[in-house]
Amino acid sequence: MSGSSSMFTYDQLIRVCYGETDQMGFLYYGYYSLYYEQARTEAFRSLGIVYREMEKEGVMMPVLEMKAKYIRPARYDDLLRVRVSVKERPGTRIRTEYEVFNEQQELLNVAEVTLVFVDHQTFKPVMCPTHIMQKLEKYLEG
Amino acid sequence: MSGSSSMFTYDQLIRVCYGETDQMGFLYYGYYSLYYEQARTEAFRSLGIVYREMEKEGVMMPVLEMKAKYIRPARYDDLLRVRVSVKERPGTRIRTEYEVFNEQQELLNVAEVTLVFVDHQTFKPVMCPTHIMQKLEKYLEG
Amino acid sequence: MSGSSSMFTYDQLIRVCYGETDQMGFLYYGYYSLYYEQARTEAFRSLGIVYREMEKEGVMMPVLEMKAKYIRPARYDDLLRVRVSVKERPGTRIRTEYEVFNEQQELLNVAEVTLVFVDHQTFKPVMCPTHIMQKLEKYLEG
Amino acid sequence: MSGSSSMFTYDQLIRVCYGETDQMGFLYYGYYSLYYEQARTEAFRSLGIVYREMEKEGVMMPVLEMKAKYIRPARYDDLLRVRVSVKERPGTRIRTEYEVFNEQQELLNVAEVTLVFVDHQTFKPVMCPTHIMQKLEKYLEG
Repeated sequence: MSGSSSMFTYDQLIRVCYGETDQMGFLYYGYYSLYYEQARTEAFRSLGIVYREMEKEGVMMPVLEMKAKYIRPARYDDLLRVRVSVKERPGTRIRTEYEVFNEQQELLNVAEVTLVFVDHQTFKPVMCPTHIMQKLEKYLEG
Repeated sequence: MSGSSSMFTYDQLIRVCYGETDQMGFLYYGYYSLYYEQARTEAFRSLGIVYREMEKEGVMMPVLEMKAKYIRPARYDDLLRVRVSVKERPGTRIRTEYEVFNEQQELLNVAEVTLVFVDHQTFKPVMCPTHIMQKLEKYLEG
Repeated sequence: MSGSSSMFTYDQLIRVCYGETDQMGFLYYGYYSLYYEQARTEAFRSLGIVYREMEKEGVMMPVLEMKAKYIRPARYDDLLRVRVSVKERPGTRIRTEYEVFNEQQELLNVAEVTLVFVDHQTFKPVMCPTHIMQKLEKYLEG
Repeated sequence: MSGSSSMFTYDQLIRVCYGETDQMGFLYYGYYSLYYEQARTEAFRSLGIVYREMEKEGVMMPVLEMKAKYIRPARYDDLLRVRVSVKERPGTRIRTEYEVFNEQQELLNVAEVTLVFVDHQTFKPVMCPTHIMQKLEKYLEG
């Protein structure tokens, strides 16, 4: 019944590169999106879903929407923990959420990225493929 | 009296590089943030505000929040028009809005980036510097 | 007869973004490659060669080799002049050279990027398309 | 006595992100430099050298020169093995070499990056710090 029991979460460690910092000495705000992608891809892989295979089977997942809040800066060489969560059963869209922590377990960043399933040829929205739905379903209530 | 008369807007042309596309052939969702930055910087420069100078004078502007909606893809070599707007008088924060158009004048992307003025040493929020306020004020009502 | 008369050169202005700097405050060494690409693309466009069209006609130009020397740092907001030169008649390969200057006309960086013409389907090397050869030829001796 | 016994090598696994591919479907030529950096940093860390600490102690390592050859493309989601080697005792400079392999053990890319040790304040070249020399020395002959 608790909220926390009814979602899928996955933690990915990512270290901040020099080239991703800016002259403030912080991870540049735009490069978080690459970290979300990396965490999302590994989260899916942990479920047995390989995005590369999905594309070959004709379903792509472009991003529809991104929202991010920058709470504390991430710095060069920080080993970040990017937690990705899926809390809702996907339809033609899937909403993924992110929390980014540093090694001191401080929350640096929260974000939400919504992606849409589209047909590779027509680029029209399609329902979330059944095998993905099945893999996510056991984590998601009702 | 109309809403459109009471804001500051600036249009920046930016061409999509090969390195910024992904294997879908689209501008990757994360790299828009660099385009927003570029448009914002040139918009400020058009007002006589050079962000580089601001930093030297001890005020930095880290990003607090970003929201973006991806409506249509931008493609390699598209010459995008990134319109940046400021609609509200800044305080310790400034909200900047973006609309991205392609050469066919299709709206590809809308976004909002909120930045905070901070002291270079203490990293505490400070009010928008007076000279910036004065330059924006003539565009903003009330 | 002089060497300088027998080459094609083109100057492209590019301003250093915040997101491209690192915590040294310098343009990160890896991002020069995007500047070379941008200068190369605009140089070709100035000749009436649109790389996007070339790809549609079935010829792609992946990079085979890059060499770069970093002489002085480029800094945030520097308006760089990227000079691209072609000094030799292309075959299946084309060698492009770069010099990067800041506003004080200091030489910051020199580089060489060799690209290969390949067939879009087979990915096998092909000769430089005739219309490109013709456009470059008037700049290149012998 | 053999050459291969007298060097330091380290293998770093790095997976190709979507955002790092281009519309050819390949890892963009410019982003290899981030992979070299990542491999170099982890190679040093494996020796007990933390570059972040070095900078705090007043020594920085800007890049002087990079050379790269692109032999075969790296593709989205490839799990690359980036082998970094140091074959010569560093002085004021250190030369690092790279070989990039895919999961089929095909060699995709070879590169060489030369960095210089500089004083954080004066930005003048300095000798490789003693503790780094000592850690590398046991791998390097005579």
